[in-house]
Amino acid sequence: MYNKIGDRMIKVIKNGLVITMNLNRKEKIEKLDIVIEDDKIIKIIDNYKGKADEFIDATNKIVMPGLINCHTHLGMSIFRCTNDSLSLMDWLNKKIWPIENKLTDEDIYYTTLLSCIEMIKTGTTTCADHYFGSLTLDAIKNSKIRCLFTRVLMDNDNKGKERLSEFIKLYKENKDSSPLITFSVSPHSLYTCSKKYLEEIKKLSDEYKLPIHIHFSESLDEINDVNSIYKKKSTEVLNDLGFLNNKLILAHGVFIDDDELKLLRNRNISIVHNPVSNLNLGCGFAPISKYIKNNINVCIGTDGQGSGNSLNMFEHIKYVDMLQKALYKNPTVMNSYDVLTMATINGAKALGLEKEIGSLEENKKADIIILDLNNIEIFPTVDIISEIVHGLSVNNIDTTIINGEILMKNRKLLLDVDEKELKEKINKILNRLNM
Amino acid sequence: MYNKIGDRMIKVIKNGLVITMNLNRKEKIEKLDIVIEDDKIIKIIDNYKGKADEFIDATNKIVMPGLINCHTHLGMSIFRCTNDSLSLMDWLNKKIWPIENKLTDEDIYYTTLLSCIEMIKTGTTTCADHYFGSLTLDAIKNSKIRCLFTRVLMDNDNKGKERLSEFIKLYKENKDSSPLITFSVSPHSLYTCSKKYLEEIKKLSDEYKLPIHIHFSESLDEINDVNSIYKKKSTEVLNDLGFLNNKLILAHGVFIDDDELKLLRNRNISIVHNPVSNLNLGCGFAPISKYIKNNINVCIGTDGQGSGNSLNMFEHIKYVDMLQKALYKNPTVMNSYDVLTMATINGAKALGLEKEIGSLEENKKADIIILDLNNIEIFPTVDIISEIVHGLSVNNIDTTIINGEILMKNRKLLLDVDEKELKEKINKILNRLNM
Repeated sequence: MYNKIGDRMIKVIKNGLVITMNLNRKEKIEKLDIVIEDDKIIKIIDNYKGKADEFIDATNKIVMPGLINCHTHLGMSIFRCTNDSLSLMDWLNKKIWPIENKLTDEDIYYTTLLSCIEMIKTGTTTCADHYFGSLTLDAIKNSKIRCLFTRVLMDNDNKGKERLSEFIKLYKENKDSSPLITFSVSPHSLYTCSKKYLEEIKKLSDEYKLPIHIHFSESLDEINDVNSIYKKKSTEVLNDLGFLNNKLILAHGVFIDDDELKLLRNRNISIVHNPVSNLNLGCGFAPISKYIKNNINVCIGTDGQGSGNSLNMFEHIKYVDMLQKALYKNPTVMNSYDVLTMATINGAKALGLEKEIGSLEENKKADIIILDLNNIEIFPTVDIISEIVHGLSVNNIDTTIINGEILMKNRKLLLDVDEKELKEKINKILNRLNM
Repeated sequence: MYNKIGDRMIKVIKNGLVITMNLNRKEKIEKLDIVIEDDKIIKIIDNYKGKADEFIDATNKIVMPGLINCHTHLGMSIFRCTNDSLSLMDWLNKKIWPIENKLTDEDIYYTTLLSCIEMIKTGTTTCADHYFGSLTLDAIKNSKIRCLFTRVLMDNDNKGKERLSEFIKLYKENKDSSPLITFSVSPHSLYTCSKKYLEEIKKLSDEYKLPIHIHFSESLDEINDVNSIYKKKSTEVLNDLGFLNNKLILAHGVFIDDDELKLLRNRNISIVHNPVSNLNLGCGFAPISKYIKNNINVCIGTDGQGSGNSLNMFEHIKYVDMLQKALYKNPTVMNSYDVLTMATINGAKALGLEKEIGSLEENKKADIIILDLNNIEIFPTVDIISEIVHGLSVNNIDTTIINGEILMKNRKLLLDVDEKELKEKINKILNRLNM
């Protein structure tokens, strides 16, 4: 379709207002051109004059890094907006787990693909998945999204060993299969895994040098469960297991007290804040501004659509600073730029990808989104950063580029997926499950 | 354009899934046709076979009452997303009031018109405004939105009397000027009005039989201010003034204690919950589920775009049940249907319009919106009510009808307003104000 310049494919995003999220640079929103060679950003300059295979006109639009969703369950798209009034434990035991037991690997292929499309259409370029299914990775690869992938591990039934073997096989067969895919080892939680099982997981993390991605300190019920099993605080349990010496991705972290913070800080540990899910399940308000003051890397996740309602990160980031302002009755405790930091470069750090993504910098991967804020219903834009965080709707998300490839342009999906056929597949699954 | 049938104009919304919000009817979401004669709904029936001047195809779409925004400041559209980290008092004193002093009546005409367009494009059909400007009512009338209108009153400078005269003149000249416009008498707050001034306002409310719409118990600073002036709780001050015997619309109500609730309940009093504004300004979490248990009518407002970020009610209602679930650590405390009730029929009650709007019923006014939930990024819809409250974006809001007139269809505004020209007018205002 395009004349390649030599062996390289050059794309240039012209005339956009660029927000780099490069924290080493005092952020100034400037009109700049971004030159992409294959998968990489090679230049960010004023008024690029060279040739290109493709020019993308971003006049009057915003250009910024794609958002990074650090905790989700891609297979759960069919549970979108279905938890109207159940606690975490009731929801899992009475609703989610019984249905999940009936999902086939093929079902999960399609529900995962649907989630990936949702992310591309809403400006997310990287996610950390936490689910299962033998075809799930195929769906992610076919969607061309960047992903920290896993196979969730738990042994609160008789399938713990099976899951572990599945994970090891999956990892060994796929660890170098795609530049977009990396792996975590992921116990579900401290209350669904035995101590022995967690010890095996720790060994895997050490052996394969993989981050551990785990649900942690999400609800008061969980705190009580862990306490009744271990007679200790959750963070002390992590410490006893040796987990605190590994790279850790702690999803939720709603109830972490000051003593626990002392154990967590100054380590290679990130807390993934999932504000919508925490509200929706009645868990509470995670005091993340305190975590940040303790030098803990805080990033953002949507959780699955069952508790988080959507994978649209732009819907979730709206809550982050506002909840802290209300929680501390102090509107100066956090601002919109802090939120964007969490949704981009902090997310990259959490997933161990901060040298590749999370900001627009030369030699980083081209994971870029373009926003169009010109609709009359959000006019005028006086403070761009604040409007991006608090004023955006999906129709403002114009273009999504992952690893140099344009996957959505002018809101049109450029993936080789038949949307109508996918919807029919999903409807068949819903019918079979009586949902 | 259409052949009128006799003297009446008949429009029929065909084949939509109808959510009536008629609380006397156990809500069942059914495929029904809605027959509109001029400004009124005259029939809600299965498969209407008669003639019509216009058929509106709502196949695979949702039909429901337009949302009612019970507290806003329409003139403030230029402050959209501009409060990133200021407290209520700092924001008003240092940012808002100095700029507002420079706004001309013509400026406010355009900023108000812009807000009305935002509401029409986001599915709001009625609002309660709380602002000023001699041309503001013209903008509202030109936009054809339904409005409980006022001229805000305060006397913390030397212009208290002037404002009062302006209001009386405005009311007398316009009280019967449009079927879409009703009036409230609206002191800004207990801390910006003297006792004498509030007593005059009470007399006006009695004489003209107008509801009183006032900012109330919004921030801890306000509670302290009122306490230092009156040495009493805010609700006791209202009681002493006799306000509790009038129809009252209390905007915010974040800090109302149990003793105050005893005074407020079983009266003609509504509390307007403004969740986003309360978070954004660091005010806190209004315990509205407690107010509801005390038989107080709770409805929803966006506040102005400065603190509320948008007038898109669909963005604001997402917060309502979720904040209560987290506040009480109980996900069963409120559900999505409760939220829709607050955003529709409870809003109508608050504004004294419950016989005319707030639900789809025969003989009520045709204030109707049509939603299209078929975009792949929010697919599938398993629980319609939950998805409407928690999953919607502006591009799902398809059609807005007010008083029988279609003001937006397929997201295209049908108002006689030049959007480009309006944007230019607003940009000129921003330039002049150095914003």
